[in-house]
Amino acid sequence: MTGAAANSTKVPLGLYIFTRLHQVGIDTVFGLPGDFNLALLDYIYDVPEMKWAGNANELNAAYAADGYARIKKLSALITTYGVGELSTLCGIGGAASESLGVIHIVGTPSTEAQSKKLLLHHTLGDGDFNVFQRMSSELSKATYSIDDIKTATKHIDDAIKTAWTYQKPVYVGLPTNFVNMEVDASLLKTPIDLTLPPNDPATEDEIFEEILRLVAKCKNPIILVDACAVRYNVKEETEKLMAITQFPTFVSPMGKSAVTEEDPRFGGVYIGSLSTPEVKEVVNSADLVISVGSLMSDFNTGSFTYGFDIHNMIEFHSDYTKIKRAIYPKTQMQSLLKKITTNENWISRLKAANSAYVPKDHPIPAAHYKPEKEMTDDSSLTQAWFWNELSTWLQEGDIIITETGTSAFGIASTKFPKNTIGISQVLWGSIGYTVGSCLGASFASTELAKPRRVLLFVGDGSLQLTVQEISTMIRWNLTPYLFVLNNSGYTIEKLIHGPTAGYNEIQPWRHQLLLKTFGATEENSESMEIKTVKEVKDLFKDVEFSKADKIRLVELFFPIMDAPDSLVKQAEMTASTNKK
Amino acid sequence: MTGAAANSTKVPLGLYIFTRLHQVGIDTVFGLPGDFNLALLDYIYDVPEMKWAGNANELNAAYAADGYARIKKLSALITTYGVGELSTLCGIGGAASESLGVIHIVGTPSTEAQSKKLLLHHTLGDGDFNVFQRMSSELSKATYSIDDIKTATKHIDDAIKTAWTYQKPVYVGLPTNFVNMEVDASLLKTPIDLTLPPNDPATEDEIFEEILRLVAKCKNPIILVDACAVRYNVKEETEKLMAITQFPTFVSPMGKSAVTEEDPRFGGVYIGSLSTPEVKEVVNSADLVISVGSLMSDFNTGSFTYGFDIHNMIEFHSDYTKIKRAIYPKTQMQSLLKKITTNENWISRLKAANSAYVPKDHPIPAAHYKPEKEMTDDSSLTQAWFWNELSTWLQEGDIIITETGTSAFGIASTKFPKNTIGISQVLWGSIGYTVGSCLGASFASTELAKPRRVLLFVGDGSLQLTVQEISTMIRWNLTPYLFVLNNSGYTIEKLIHGPTAGYNEIQPWRHQLLLKTFGATEENSESMEIKTVKEVKDLFKDVEFSKADKIRLVELFFPIMDAPDSLVKQAEMTASTNKK
Repeated sequence: MTGAAANSTKVPLGLYIFTRLHQVGIDTVFGLPGDFNLALLDYIYDVPEMKWAGNANELNAAYAADGYARIKKLSALITTYGVGELSTLCGIGGAASESLGVIHIVGTPSTEAQSKKLLLHHTLGDGDFNVFQRMSSELSKATYSIDDIKTATKHIDDAIKTAWTYQKPVYVGLPTNFVNMEVDASLLKTPIDLTLPPNDPATEDEIFEEILRLVAKCKNPIILVDACAVRYNVKEETEKLMAITQFPTFVSPMGKSAVTEEDPRFGGVYIGSLSTPEVKEVVNSADLVISVGSLMSDFNTGSFTYGFDIHNMIEFHSDYTKIKRAIYPKTQMQSLLKKITTNENWISRLKAANSAYVPKDHPIPAAHYKPEKEMTDDSSLTQAWFWNELSTWLQEGDIIITETGTSAFGIASTKFPKNTIGISQVLWGSIGYTVGSCLGASFASTELAKPRRVLLFVGDGSLQLTVQEISTMIRWNLTPYLFVLNNSGYTIEKLIHGPTAGYNEIQPWRHQLLLKTFGATEENSESMEIKTVKEVKDLFKDVEFSKADKIRLVELFFPIMDAPDSLVKQAEMTASTNKK
Repeated sequence: MTGAAANSTKVPLGLYIFTRLHQVGIDTVFGLPGDFNLALLDYIYDVPEMKWAGNANELNAAYAADGYARIKKLSALITTYGVGELSTLCGIGGAASESLGVIHIVGTPSTEAQSKKLLLHHTLGDGDFNVFQRMSSELSKATYSIDDIKTATKHIDDAIKTAWTYQKPVYVGLPTNFVNMEVDASLLKTPIDLTLPPNDPATEDEIFEEILRLVAKCKNPIILVDACAVRYNVKEETEKLMAITQFPTFVSPMGKSAVTEEDPRFGGVYIGSLSTPEVKEVVNSADLVISVGSLMSDFNTGSFTYGFDIHNMIEFHSDYTKIKRAIYPKTQMQSLLKKITTNENWISRLKAANSAYVPKDHPIPAAHYKPEKEMTDDSSLTQAWFWNELSTWLQEGDIIITETGTSAFGIASTKFPKNTIGISQVLWGSIGYTVGSCLGASFASTELAKPRRVLLFVGDGSLQLTVQEISTMIRWNLTPYLFVLNNSGYTIEKLIHGPTAGYNEIQPWRHQLLLKTFGATEENSESMEIKTVKEVKDLFKDVEFSKADKIRLVELFFPIMDAPDSLVKQAEMTASTNKK
């Protein structure tokens, strides 16, 4: 414990909250001031390591909290009653959908004002002060309303633990009059217990016997790694499982970056029928699929076109395990995979069961990242070429953020170096998300032992929704790369429906002026236009450019309607589903 | 009926919807494309008079729909499932709180996809396809889910009628597969019946007798006009009531522009203890208050500091009438006021009851708009001076939009010419609202028989939340005046709490670059900085500047923490309420 709370016997609840958040690794808090949260915000400055990001708007703040949580596993967002909290809901929905531990604290009117049903600003004017919490409860794993100082610290601790355990958003309503009330400071000396409840050992044993039985008889097994492997933090266990079994391992679009692509067993990205032929051949002929953290949504599976038998899988999930058709409730993968990959006895037994397995040839990842052959130096950029070429410039540890659109689909054919983190909102798919997320990831990066480069890829259409958050990046001297893919409109929508319709057009902006408009200087920023293959190649060779020492906006020009093949095909399938 | 629907016996439901919206006067539709609404949007082009605004983000679109509805009494907003609709909720909350008829149509997944509980993008991934409608139902007067083509047209008609009658938001979920289904075109030949249900005549009689009794014995009566007089469109009846009774008439901050300020009976703005002494004297000593459309919220009443007896009022509301302590349910003011002010017999009886009334001196409005004495030409601007000076530049019919902050409080001391429309979100108070609202009002203005000038007053802090909607204004060649009050941060929050706190600071922007960044040209736009009294005076004398023939951004520099007196006092009271 540090700061103002260290030497007191009593602390105000406001200080208790920020101290607790700091204890679980949250050092940047996102949100906007509003009169019902101002008194709370005062206390953030009493925890020296903490920062108040001060976002440009609340939706962007929620996206930033999501991006921060993808790096640090928990994040906090503070808004004001009614207007502030409702503005975040699309971002909270994303955290619910994509499993991120976002703690949303809402400053609410004083309990006296609430009980008197005063006709206050930021209300619907009907005296119902619970309506907004009810709305958030639809998206939150749990909601808490602080209404008694005796239970306040327990509610705060429970909220944090719930967000951590389930990796879902939680909601805390905090009336203004509770902020300065005092609570027992000694509580802060005991960290919140974030250990997961253990699985039932007998169930684990039974599951493991089943696994051994299936592993013993398979000839073409694979491991398929998906989103929840990242969210529930079993990347290390998954890589150990690859090493123990030697099974070829694939990732879904949402699972990309969950395992090291340089591992010789890594086979590429599996997106059902949208996969490359080499990947499809191996995955679709698998006679056992060991699935880690799967999330089989339309855009994550090429609209459900998986070619393997979904009833012949071992599925590790965050809240249950499934073997073939049998479900083992409450047996969560975090402990189970840990035991499988660290218990010496279990490792030996798994290797023994697996002893007859002869590793097959599997796709060479290089074949997955298909080089484009016919580009010359003065060629215009194409998506197919660019996403391959990007592989040459990435560095170990990069955080790579791609927007739902051409970027999220294109990135599947980029080779990730070791230890990179991929961020993309494939399930929720809210356009504009990545700009806020980039801010959150950039803050998180500065708090890591070794800061990482943050690379944002966003289309000109999506950028328009959330552009002002670039201002917050500049304010904090954050140094992400903002790659703006300028292809004149909402290309993903055009591919699905209405390629020439007015509703898919956007107002053209002068992107080169954005950084300057939002207050950047010549010294701390750089903006450039890139139109040809040679310009990209030169840029990627430029040592100065590669140092993430200032914010950079790189505007990449692509032909209208140019898109990664996988997106073109996905769009056709989505259009067909919508018509049915 | 015009366009593609005119000569058919069957029309697709999508065309039916836009034809109906057009029939009730909606010619601009706000929103963003998303794959679940694209097929619907195709049909907007089949109604020649209609436009798809194509907003920069959904919250801004909702604010625009609110602003449009303040001029045209109904508006429409189209978003996509999940991500799009949740992004609007703060705007929909504003429409609920402040009573605007916003019809929100959400493109939802096909009924087949819903019934199969497919794990689709834009969902929470749990197969619950009703969650977002449940959330919207908390803010909407009614929600509809189209699930049967037989009832679809009735649901659409009911949604429109409900939004009109109650001046509240309604929600329509429209699955993709219904858009092209055909419905009976002849239905479109009968306009939707928008007449209100009549009041019970016997109740009206009883109320009128009570009114006569109270009017006969009062000596110092006043009329107090508030927000709902504007929303429920009884401005004309209210002015007739002023003429018949000759009672001094005041407006609340939310009621400003409801009555003609040039009327000799007009006495100024009443904001409880924050009113000028002249206004307070008359209103607080009233022995009868005839209240039209009152909405007695904290910011609208100087934190409930009204000095008259609230149990000695005649209250006309949109859904009931109240006389002293007696409530007459369902007796709505629209018909009742019409009868009182147009029925010859009732007018005579009211005048007779009123015959002993001797009109008192009442405040000269000029005294309310206090001129600032000590300004010289090279003085820096002050809020106190500016809002008075603005009176000299306003024109008949102007639409004047003020943001919650210094603008909404300052505008109380500006004299409005005849027939102006004031827009301000005093109850909901969501910062950033006015930029979207300005877009909506600007579209609405172009659709009026005589277009009006649109004047936006927004602080540098609030502007940051919604700035990108300026791009949509430029795209459509709309020509509002964007007055940006640059006072370096969230002044209203600083006044309430934390005047020097980091959380109330914002990143400084180069506002002069905004129009250019968003694609405006030298020809169709103008940006300027204004720092002194003389610069304002010169600007207001400039005939070219006064023609609303291009979009103009006028950056007005104010000292940090300079604010209208009424805001300073309101902020103190709000801070005190929050602490209790």
